[in-house]
Amino acid sequence: MRILILGGDGYLGWPTAMNLAAHGHEIIVADNYLRRSLCRETSSEPLFEVPNLQDRAVHWFERTGQKISVAIGNLADWTFAAGVFEQFLPEAVIHYAEQPSGPYSMMNRGAAATTLNNNLGTTFNVIFAVKEFCPDCHIIKLGTMGEYGTPNIDIEEGWLDIKHKGREGRFLFPRQAGSLYHTTKIMDTDLLWFYVRNWGLRVTDLMQGPVYGMETEESGVDQRLMPFFNYDEIFGTVLNRFVVQAVAGFPLTVYGAGGQTRGFLNIKDTLSCVKLAALTPPDKGQLRIFNQFTEVFSVNDLASHVQRAGRLLGYDVMIKSIANPRQELEEHYYNPAHTGLLELGLEPHLLTDNVLAGMLETVARNADRIDQRKFLRGVKWA
Amino acid sequence: MRILILGGDGYLGWPTAMNLAAHGHEIIVADNYLRRSLCRETSSEPLFEVPNLQDRAVHWFERTGQKISVAIGNLADWTFAAGVFEQFLPEAVIHYAEQPSGPYSMMNRGAAATTLNNNLGTTFNVIFAVKEFCPDCHIIKLGTMGEYGTPNIDIEEGWLDIKHKGREGRFLFPRQAGSLYHTTKIMDTDLLWFYVRNWGLRVTDLMQGPVYGMETEESGVDQRLMPFFNYDEIFGTVLNRFVVQAVAGFPLTVYGAGGQTRGFLNIKDTLSCVKLAALTPPDKGQLRIFNQFTEVFSVNDLASHVQRAGRLLGYDVMIKSIANPRQELEEHYYNPAHTGLLELGLEPHLLTDNVLAGMLETVARNADRIDQRKFLRGVKWA
Repeated sequence: MRILILGGDGYLGWPTAMNLAAHGHEIIVADNYLRRSLCRETSSEPLFEVPNLQDRAVHWFERTGQKISVAIGNLADWTFAAGVFEQFLPEAVIHYAEQPSGPYSMMNRGAAATTLNNNLGTTFNVIFAVKEFCPDCHIIKLGTMGEYGTPNIDIEEGWLDIKHKGREGRFLFPRQAGSLYHTTKIMDTDLLWFYVRNWGLRVTDLMQGPVYGMETEESGVDQRLMPFFNYDEIFGTVLNRFVVQAVAGFPLTVYGAGGQTRGFLNIKDTLSCVKLAALTPPDKGQLRIFNQFTEVFSVNDLASHVQRAGRLLGYDVMIKSIANPRQELEEHYYNPAHTGLLELGLEPHLLTDNVLAGMLETVARNADRIDQRKFLRGVKWA
Repeated sequence: MRILILGGDGYLGWPTAMNLAAHGHEIIVADNYLRRSLCRETSSEPLFEVPNLQDRAVHWFERTGQKISVAIGNLADWTFAAGVFEQFLPEAVIHYAEQPSGPYSMMNRGAAATTLNNNLGTTFNVIFAVKEFCPDCHIIKLGTMGEYGTPNIDIEEGWLDIKHKGREGRFLFPRQAGSLYHTTKIMDTDLLWFYVRNWGLRVTDLMQGPVYGMETEESGVDQRLMPFFNYDEIFGTVLNRFVVQAVAGFPLTVYGAGGQTRGFLNIKDTLSCVKLAALTPPDKGQLRIFNQFTEVFSVNDLASHVQRAGRLLGYDVMIKSIANPRQELEEHYYNPAHTGLLELGLEPHLLTDNVLAGMLETVARNADRIDQRKFLRGVKWA
C-alpha cells in the first residue's frame, strides 16, 4: 500500500515508517522538524541525539534494502502539502503532524498560537489535499484520549447514543479537554467530521493515550534508528519521565494527589494499532473512532510500578508529590471503552516489570546524558 | 459601560453600536472591512451602499451628539487586537468579527481557509487580550443555532444532562454543523470553553438563528445609518432574499422540499438580546449559553408568508423549488429551547404581515438597485 506519514520524524512517526516499510508498504515521510525546533527553543532536547530524517532513511536502507522516501517541508503550507499528495497519491495517510505537547501549548500566547495554527492548518490541508488529489485515500488521524477529559460517565469509543425526552440520537461523544493542545485535537475532529459528512471522506480517528517505551522491532537493529526519547516535563510523557528520574536518582515527581487516571500503551502497540487501522479502511463517508490504549493506570500506580521495577535493578527510587501545575481533577471516575482495536486483532504489550527493566537499562546506557534541570520546567496552567 | 464591538461595520455590528450608544454606553467599534471585501470579491454587494465606518460615526454624532470611536484593523492580528484592548480596557466585548456566510465558506479552499483563519484567529486573540488586559471583561460571543445542526432530539440551551449506564454528567450539547462556517463556530466554542475553565473568563455565547430586517430604532433617523442589506445567495439570509425576490418579481427560490426548519429573529431582537446579555454578565468561570431566536419556521413557511404579504401589496409572488445546492435534511425534527433570553426580559418582534410590508416597502424604494444575477450563485456543497 502507498502510505504517506505526516510528522514522520517524530517519536511515533519514524518507528511507524520503519514498521510499515518492513511489512512491505511503500512509504513516504513528511516533516518540517517542528518538534526538534520546539525542543531546542525550550531547552528540552531528547535523551540522545537522533540523525536527521534523510540520514535515518539512508541508515534504514543500508540495513534493510527498503526505501523510505523523505519530503521536508511545512504541511500547514498548502503548496508543500499539495505537492506531496499530488506526487505520491497515497492510499493511506497517517497524520501525526501536530504539536503534541499539552505543557508546551500552555507556556504562553506564542506557543498556543503555534499549536493552534500548526495543528489546524495541517489537518485542514490534509482534508483539502485528499479531496483534490486522492479522494479514496484513507485518513488515519491521531487523536487523543485527552479529548474526552475525565467525565463522570463511561467513555465510549468516539460516539454516544443519547436518549433525551423520549427521543434518540447518536452523537460524537461530548468532549472537553485539559489543555489547549488537547483542545486543538477536538477541533480537528470537528473539522474532519464535517468534511466526512459533506464529501464522503474515509477517516479513522485513533484516540490515543500516553505512549511509553522506545524500542520497537525495527529500532533494535541500530541505535541510530531509535526514536526521540524526551524525558522533560514539556515533551516527555509521564512514564518515560519517571524511568529517567529513577535512573538519575531523582524522586519521581507526582502532581498533587496522583489519582489522575489515564489509558496508556507501549509504543509497539501504537505501531500495531496504526497498521491494523490501515489494513481495514472504513467505508467512504465513515468516521471510525477507536480508543487506543491497553491499560488504565493512575499516576500513583505508575510511580509505584517504576519504583518496584527500579528497586529490582538496585535503584533507590523515591516518590515525591509536588504542587500540580495543571488544572485537572486529581481524583475522578474513569472508565473508557477500548474494544475496537482488540477486535481488529491487537495483541497488547502490557506494562510488566520486564518491560520497565528494559526501559531502565536503555536509559542507564545513556545516563551521562541526563540533564536533571529538564525534569521540572515550571509551566503553569493558570 | 465601556463596550467594544468587534465586527462593528457589519449587518449587526453597526446597529448594535448605535443602539448601545443611544442607551448611554461608551462604544468603540473595530473592523477591517473583511465583509465588504468579500462581498466585492464575490460580486455580492448589498442592496444599497453604506458609508464607511468613520463616516457613519460622524453621521451618528451629527444626529445625536453621541460619540462612537472607530478602530480599523485586523483583529486576527495580535498587534492590532492587543492595542485596541489595551487602550480601551472594555468591560464587555461583543464579538461579531467573523466571516458569517455558510455558502462563502463552501466556495473553494481559499474561502474556507479565510473563514477558518479569520474566525479562529480573532477568537483566539480576544481570549488572550481579555486575559492580558481586562480579565474581568465579559465576552459576548455570537454563536449560531447552526452549530447544533438538526438532531433527532430536542435542542437545549447549550448544555445537556446525560444519563449513561447509571451515571450522570453535564456536557456542552453535542454539535454538528452544516457548513464550514458553522463548524468554525463550534471550534470557537471549544476554544472559549477551555479557557473559561482554565482561566475563569466570563463568557456569554449567543446561539443565534438567521436574522431578518434592516430597520432599527436608531437607523430610522437617517438612511446613511442603515446596515448592509445583502440579498444574494452568498451573504443574504433567506428571508431578506425572499423579500427582494418578491419585489423584483423573481420566484422565491426554495431549496428542495423546503422543509428545512430553523429559528429566526428580527434584527431589533438581536439588539435587545445583546443588550440584555451585556447588562447581566455571568460569573467568572461561567460559559452562559442562550439560544437566540424568537420563532421557528420552515423555508416553505417563510416563502408562503412573503407570498401572502407581497400579494397584499400587489406583488405577484411566485414560489419555485430548485435543486438544493447544500447537503442538508429537507425534512427533519426540530425543537429547540429558547427561554433564557425571554426570562431576561426579551420582548420579541414577531414576523407579522406588517413587518414584512415594512421590509417590502424599504426594498421597493431601492428596487432599481436590485441585480437579479445575485439571487442564484451556484455555490455547491459537494
